[in-house]
Amino acid sequence: MRKLQVTYLPSGTVATVPEGTTVFNAAHWAGLPIDSTCGGRGTCGKCGVRVVEGHAERTLADYRHLNADLDEGWRLSCQCAVTGDMVVEVPRLLHMPKAATMGVGRFVLLEPNVATYVFEVPEPTLEDPRGHLQRVRDLLEGEGIEVTCEPAVLPSLAEAFADEPSTITATVVGDHLVEVEAGDTSGRMFGVSFDLGTTTVVATLLDLRSGAAVGVASTINRQSPFGADVIARMGHAMQTDEGLEQLRTAALDTLNAVLTEARSTAGVEARKIAEAVVVGNATMLHLLLGVHPRSIAVSPFVATFTEPLDLRAADVGIGIHPSGRVALFPSIGAYVGADIVADVLATGLARDGEMRLLVDVGTNGEIVCGNAERSAASAAPAGPAFEGGQILHGMRATDGAIEGVTLTGGEVELQVIGGPDEAPRGLCGSGLIDAVAQLRLVGLLDEKGSLLGGEQAAGHPLADRLVDREGIRAFELAPGVLLTQLDVRELQSAKGAISTGIEVVMHHLGVVAADLDEVLLAGSFGTYINPRSAVVLGLVPPVPVDRIKAVGNTASEGAKMALMSFREREVAFELPRFIEYVELSGAADFNDRFIRNLAFPPIEPATTAGAAG
Amino acid sequence: MRKLQVTYLPSGTVATVPEGTTVFNAAHWAGLPIDSTCGGRGTCGKCGVRVVEGHAERTLADYRHLNADLDEGWRLSCQCAVTGDMVVEVPRLLHMPKAATMGVGRFVLLEPNVATYVFEVPEPTLEDPRGHLQRVRDLLEGEGIEVTCEPAVLPSLAEAFADEPSTITATVVGDHLVEVEAGDTSGRMFGVSFDLGTTTVVATLLDLRSGAAVGVASTINRQSPFGADVIARMGHAMQTDEGLEQLRTAALDTLNAVLTEARSTAGVEARKIAEAVVVGNATMLHLLLGVHPRSIAVSPFVATFTEPLDLRAADVGIGIHPSGRVALFPSIGAYVGADIVADVLATGLARDGEMRLLVDVGTNGEIVCGNAERSAASAAPAGPAFEGGQILHGMRATDGAIEGVTLTGGEVELQVIGGPDEAPRGLCGSGLIDAVAQLRLVGLLDEKGSLLGGEQAAGHPLADRLVDREGIRAFELAPGVLLTQLDVRELQSAKGAISTGIEVVMHHLGVVAADLDEVLLAGSFGTYINPRSAVVLGLVPPVPVDRIKAVGNTASEGAKMALMSFREREVAFELPRFIEYVELSGAADFNDRFIRNLAFPPIEPATTAGAAG
Repeated sequence: MRKLQVTYLPSGTVATVPEGTTVFNAAHWAGLPIDSTCGGRGTCGKCGVRVVEGHAERTLADYRHLNADLDEGWRLSCQCAVTGDMVVEVPRLLHMPKAATMGVGRFVLLEPNVATYVFEVPEPTLEDPRGHLQRVRDLLEGEGIEVTCEPAVLPSLAEAFADEPSTITATVVGDHLVEVEAGDTSGRMFGVSFDLGTTTVVATLLDLRSGAAVGVASTINRQSPFGADVIARMGHAMQTDEGLEQLRTAALDTLNAVLTEARSTAGVEARKIAEAVVVGNATMLHLLLGVHPRSIAVSPFVATFTEPLDLRAADVGIGIHPSGRVALFPSIGAYVGADIVADVLATGLARDGEMRLLVDVGTNGEIVCGNAERSAASAAPAGPAFEGGQILHGMRATDGAIEGVTLTGGEVELQVIGGPDEAPRGLCGSGLIDAVAQLRLVGLLDEKGSLLGGEQAAGHPLADRLVDREGIRAFELAPGVLLTQLDVRELQSAKGAISTGIEVVMHHLGVVAADLDEVLLAGSFGTYINPRSAVVLGLVPPVPVDRIKAVGNTASEGAKMALMSFREREVAFELPRFIEYVELSGAADFNDRFIRNLAFPPIEPATTAGAAG
Repeated sequence: MRKLQVTYLPSGTVATVPEGTTVFNAAHWAGLPIDSTCGGRGTCGKCGVRVVEGHAERTLADYRHLNADLDEGWRLSCQCAVTGDMVVEVPRLLHMPKAATMGVGRFVLLEPNVATYVFEVPEPTLEDPRGHLQRVRDLLEGEGIEVTCEPAVLPSLAEAFADEPSTITATVVGDHLVEVEAGDTSGRMFGVSFDLGTTTVVATLLDLRSGAAVGVASTINRQSPFGADVIARMGHAMQTDEGLEQLRTAALDTLNAVLTEARSTAGVEARKIAEAVVVGNATMLHLLLGVHPRSIAVSPFVATFTEPLDLRAADVGIGIHPSGRVALFPSIGAYVGADIVADVLATGLARDGEMRLLVDVGTNGEIVCGNAERSAASAAPAGPAFEGGQILHGMRATDGAIEGVTLTGGEVELQVIGGPDEAPRGLCGSGLIDAVAQLRLVGLLDEKGSLLGGEQAAGHPLADRLVDREGIRAFELAPGVLLTQLDVRELQSAKGAISTGIEVVMHHLGVVAADLDEVLLAGSFGTYINPRSAVVLGLVPPVPVDRIKAVGNTASEGAKMALMSFREREVAFELPRFIEYVELSGAADFNDRFIRNLAFPPIEPATTAGAAG
């Protein structure tokens, strides 16, 4: 895809965007605000810029709003598509919106997609046959806003005008009129972001006036009884007639449960929440809408929808204002979902010159790499090892799970969830990674992933920890908690899949490890991975450890950013077009690479020093 | 409002339209087809015309579709607003669509708003990560169609692609994707038009492929138990808490009942009906959507909505395809509703040079007058007399009702519903009008509406028919069927209201009776009024009787035209902007005019001759 540069004066900010992006949205990519009240719909006429260099067609909206200035190069930036490199001059913002740092150090202008308008309404007269809807439309048009109106809004419109009020408040989400109320009710306005994870579901209730999170709630996805991961869930939908409906209901019930909890914490009525933003992988979003995911399950892995959807809350069943809107983030592909798009939004990947690699480690590892010039994504089937599955003493990251391991001299130091007094009961994913990495560093595990035998290990200060369990070698981490040779093999397979995915994506882009400015470990699991261990295992490319960052639940952060800023949302919705999708099973040399990546990288002296430090 | 003329070459057809109409739609006003597959949404690029005279901005769509020809004046007619008089050249239509005569001799091109597209679909591959929705969108875009997709359509999309079909059929209504099915299912496609009258509800099921009406059903509006007319219905909504919901349910049940009857006659499944068009007065449409009509009931008589609405069938509750669309015609004002807009569409009023007066006589008399240059509408509260209400022996137009009266010599000739053997039991509206007009013609009723007394009538061949009933003079039409002096007063009041409405509208336009080319009596009642009698009473202006036409249920006809032709629909939806609304109670001299109009006009010799002939 052709990338083009727009230079904005006087700041000199440069945005690199795909052909066809508008000059208005390109500015969002670069974090530069251009004035607008209609959000880029060509109706308010406030987003004019002067084109200094480059080609810009005149549009009907230009004639309507900028008539006299057209010859001097003025254009509405929201109607002006970038078709070549351009230089434009942007007027200074008269009212700088409030801003906040969100996601991974992203500077976000707080201009939500939800807006309220308070109008004085003149008394109706016999001379003016306009209906209530037309009156509201005319008032909104005066503000540069054109709206559509669902039939369900009409009864409330009649009620709002029942007592001939002198003031009304119109709530608009995007270009949808959601409610009209008598009086000034503009004081309180909320939105909710949902991260619909396969395992965990999080709701964050945001005060759209201040940007503050006023309620957060999370819970296990109620689909869990139907399968631990997306593959199992899809299987359930395919095996039984009622499976799809069970999964849909479970997803919806989970969202409404966390919403209700967040609402009651904050004391916010459902009707005061005008918008929800939902992120999640493609399978979760399909199930939420009752769309059968069978085509995602089998090659060539086609989703039914990947585009962003703008839905009515009552249609989806989410318990906010029934005429409120639900925005679903777009997906990049069937296995690189809306959650990853939210990750990308929250981390700033693909929007500046920094070359970033983002890895969301789970049963599916999603990988995105790139900068403003070019970026690509893929997904690697890691299997359940990182979540403790198929591991002898594997367990979820709850009390008693070993989450960190340090082997120094003859000592085994364990970090156990629940505190130092908690007896270790098993290994969670980060503990597994740490344990294997430490065994590599102290020389008890070779490059091929074999634990040393008794004789080879003789004289090693930790030799007495090597045991035999039913003919299988194992390392005793704690009394009753073993790491077996088979566990190591499971981990090798999981990391082999992910590192192959990373390799294929980087190869696709022509990027090598030294090019990477940042490696971002995302997702709730990513947060707990020891960056050093990730490098030692070869889970991520060999970069200096300080370039590796655990960024936490960036999917939730991305959803919140889109809720608080229509500009960030525009970027999120355009991202899939910008990010190339690389299908791993389509890569000719995938199997060769995978076999090669089962091995661990050699221990670099620098890394060894790090481990000892 | 400024009216502008567009002349289309080579035919020389002239359209007179309000400023801002597109060149494409202006052609529809004049009945001239310009090629298009997208229906005027700027996406198919087929509606190009060459602007020979006049000003036409270039638009983004022009650049996209007509690039090279812009300098020669080519523009997409659907994107080109008329801002001054213009002359344009229209390419000859390569494929003339089928046409039929509908409404009152209207020539209608059969191009419904519903379309099906059959596509060959290539097998999905690993290299192509597009989702099913995107594939369908891309295929439609190749045909120049851009669609939106409701969430409820997505599950059917997944089903359609479940078995990797080689062919799919997409059903599109306007710009809504309604269904995608595997295989070629394009053979059968239906639509339904509803006339939601206060008294009678009619459904017509149309085969959208042929234009044939395959099923018609009508019934009494199930709201009738809640009141005979719109005033009573609104009262019911205001008096009880559950009134509004009762009325909504009753209206909806009635529509679904006639729909089911029409469907079973024709053997058509609900899912094969992709669109419904609904006309009715503003109160009926408000009640159908559960919108409280209280503001229509009291001065200044404001509707909540008057604009055309494009709704999802499942939202309204109408039993066609749940994702199918329901189009509600727009209203001109709170008392000149969508039914009258349909009347206007069906009669061609306001679209050519003919000066027409349309009167829909009922408890409310709606009046529209005008030609392509200018037109205006009003409503007059006639009361129930025309429907037999407040009349001693008044009755509905059913078996036994006198519907026609002729007084010649000493004879009383009656036309009774049910045939010559049916005993007359009472008078329906047309019989009432006839009786009074005949009494005027034979000299038994004076200009002020007083029946002659016994002495004054002495010697008249019909003197023996004049009787006294409890001190009130009366004329005996048949044994036991009297027309009393009070009945005449009721009729005077009703006709006074309507003729005042006509007078005010014609005065508003500066039109006199001699200017009228046609007087159209619309509505099921209008069909039965004897034109001569209408002139004798002064119900309509004094025009030669051959200029008066009973046009029948033109509301239903207009709805059917809009269902069969997107071009006619565009005109219908623009009509309210074109027709000035005159509020009778706002006319300063309304009362004076009304009092004056209670009297009957003098008997003109010509009219008398007509009566005798």
